[in-house]
Amino acid sequence: MPEFLKLATPSAALGRWLETIPSPLASRIERIPTPLALGRVLAEAITAQEALPPFSRSTVDGYALRAEDTFGASASAPSYLQLAGEVPMGAAPVLAIGPGQAAVVHTGGAIPAGANAVVMLEDTQQVPGGEIEVFVALGIGRNVITAGEDVQPGERVLEPGLRLRPQEIGGLMALGVTEILVRPRVRLGIISTGDEVVPAEASPGPGQVRDVNTHTLSALALRWGAEPRAHGIIPDDLEALLRTARQALAQDDLVAITAGSSASTRDNTAEVVSRLGDPGVLVHGLAIRPGKPTILGVAGRTPIIGLPGNPVSALVIAGLMIPPAVRKLSGEMRPAVTATVRATLAADVPSEAGREDYIPVRLEATPAGWIADPVFGKSNLIFTLVRADGLIRIPAEATGLTRGSPIDVIPME
Amino acid sequence: MPEFLKLATPSAALGRWLETIPSPLASRIERIPTPLALGRVLAEAITAQEALPPFSRSTVDGYALRAEDTFGASASAPSYLQLAGEVPMGAAPVLAIGPGQAAVVHTGGAIPAGANAVVMLEDTQQVPGGEIEVFVALGIGRNVITAGEDVQPGERVLEPGLRLRPQEIGGLMALGVTEILVRPRVRLGIISTGDEVVPAEASPGPGQVRDVNTHTLSALALRWGAEPRAHGIIPDDLEALLRTARQALAQDDLVAITAGSSASTRDNTAEVVSRLGDPGVLVHGLAIRPGKPTILGVAGRTPIIGLPGNPVSALVIAGLMIPPAVRKLSGEMRPAVTATVRATLAADVPSEAGREDYIPVRLEATPAGWIADPVFGKSNLIFTLVRADGLIRIPAEATGLTRGSPIDVIPME
Repeated sequence: MPEFLKLATPSAALGRWLETIPSPLASRIERIPTPLALGRVLAEAITAQEALPPFSRSTVDGYALRAEDTFGASASAPSYLQLAGEVPMGAAPVLAIGPGQAAVVHTGGAIPAGANAVVMLEDTQQVPGGEIEVFVALGIGRNVITAGEDVQPGERVLEPGLRLRPQEIGGLMALGVTEILVRPRVRLGIISTGDEVVPAEASPGPGQVRDVNTHTLSALALRWGAEPRAHGIIPDDLEALLRTARQALAQDDLVAITAGSSASTRDNTAEVVSRLGDPGVLVHGLAIRPGKPTILGVAGRTPIIGLPGNPVSALVIAGLMIPPAVRKLSGEMRPAVTATVRATLAADVPSEAGREDYIPVRLEATPAGWIADPVFGKSNLIFTLVRADGLIRIPAEATGLTRGSPIDVIPME
Repeated sequence: MPEFLKLATPSAALGRWLETIPSPLASRIERIPTPLALGRVLAEAITAQEALPPFSRSTVDGYALRAEDTFGASASAPSYLQLAGEVPMGAAPVLAIGPGQAAVVHTGGAIPAGANAVVMLEDTQQVPGGEIEVFVALGIGRNVITAGEDVQPGERVLEPGLRLRPQEIGGLMALGVTEILVRPRVRLGIISTGDEVVPAEASPGPGQVRDVNTHTLSALALRWGAEPRAHGIIPDDLEALLRTARQALAQDDLVAITAGSSASTRDNTAEVVSRLGDPGVLVHGLAIRPGKPTILGVAGRTPIIGLPGNPVSALVIAGLMIPPAVRKLSGEMRPAVTATVRATLAADVPSEAGREDYIPVRLEATPAGWIADPVFGKSNLIFTLVRADGLIRIPAEATGLTRGSPIDVIPME
């Protein structure tokens, strides 16, 4: 057996791979309606054309007034102000506030000229003669958001490379930016290989199994905001794989090849990656379980990943390696954040030092918090992951974790 | 001002609301192709019609053999076995293994009749005469996954109420289940109100602002796997709001009304909720900031939420209250898990005891881990949330958090 496995650490391997990936994809930029841009990556800087809010607004229901007129006011010694009218909602205020005057204003209503603060309704009382008593002293600007307090005209509010969340969609619409330029969805080419693999729609004959990886990888791609492009199932034949890989390379931004299961096929993937173009294979073999036989490579400017053929390894490795590559290809600028769930480990988990381990766990709610119960199973068993709510990572330097240890669970959603 | 705000705790309020929500929605069940079902909720139990794997398979490249023939074998005293041939990939094994025999088998290949273990290639050596030396003793079943080890025929593998992830899609396809029944996407009706609110496409006149909430809530709905259905912007008019709310109630599974900003409109929402049908308003006012004026109600079997009009409050409250309701309506059975990021607080954050506070924070990576930097801003400023990566929660019993405290950040993605 060839000694082809130089075991790089997953993070070092990922770092080497990412270095070679261009950022961001420059072509296929689209102009789309902002409400359809959730999860897309902005391809332009957005500069506000107007102020937000467009006019100074009250943040409470109450009376707009001049703060100076309330100085020294208290419950026992209220200020008395003359009611000058009411600010209508959704229209320009026609009245102006002079010294000793106040006007009814609703939350979100415009602050009339002359006023510089709003007293809350509950800190006042109407008295006969069209007057109000004000029981509190107000500072200038109290209960007011001033025009442009959120955004100034000419302010650069969003930068290219931002992946758009609900608040960005809302912010853009608030500014009247109803169409935007977005970067393309990253195209993830998916090639499944193996003489024994048949389409999921087929009835497997003796010695055959259905294709799982095309479907899990396609679903993962959708989760990551990428566009999955399945290139079918290729037999364990070097030339056939090379042809399909060249096709994928011409059309896709990132290519994943899931190895057929035989040793010769694994060699096929490495051979294909090195024949597709320079720099070729960067990493062959990771100090990780599951997923040791992973291949990371680049042909020209297109990253290629050779995933293990078994579905659990393929899913775990894809989840670790592909999202950072997708982010890099999108030129995404916000740092990647891994959110976890704190839990208590329900069983001892052995691990070999020098190798990073990922173990599927089931989360169980208890009054004392979450319990993480390892779902042990060979990495060929996809239903191991169906029974799991998340993964725990055992770092390379550890030789296992003991029952009762606190542990961070990476949810699988 | 009416003393209408009885301040329930957010969790008690949510509990009361969820109790009244039917689970799951019984109508509009669809049959769809499994590869399109990512994120959908299964509406049927899935029973495996076949075994997975369908035949016993090798997990390594090596030689299939009878474990008994290796008992006592070691590097210094190997067992000698006669090579009987090679198991082809993707076809039925034609050979059978007798005592003293072995056959080449690839990872994923079928275990031939008579064999009960596989020795890894690296633990063997070919010797002249068509024999191999085996340097290790193997237990029965070593490096083999047996037929049905993942799934047995007749086994119930998935339950109704499961939200489908990549691994479930893969597992279903592995079993040849290419179409499934799924529950409907929950329809979230969205009604924006306010005399001052104009569509985002319009140029606001004096005193007018663009609608933000329809767009943030629609985007949130998509995030939660729900179907947003915008009912437009309704002026501050009780009858008009009642008409639109009745329409939404007839078509949608959950209705969100974002209050116009005036006090009278807030009364409108409560009045409308109580007139739509029993039990009406369940909760009016939450001990929370932002989001105190939240209304939770139910008309017949349809939950209704009255959200504050300002976009930050609306987004925060929607994020806390609507996903559990969507889960309940979907009959989702997996427990909800909130994953967080551990960070160190960069500044003091004041808070009033008795009130739960949610503060937007920006995450900054440092060599010592994440720093959570509070983004202070009035809750009317949507760009406050654009600058934030997540939220921190200050529990009701706390009076604030001090700089340098460890804090769990709920990412906003």
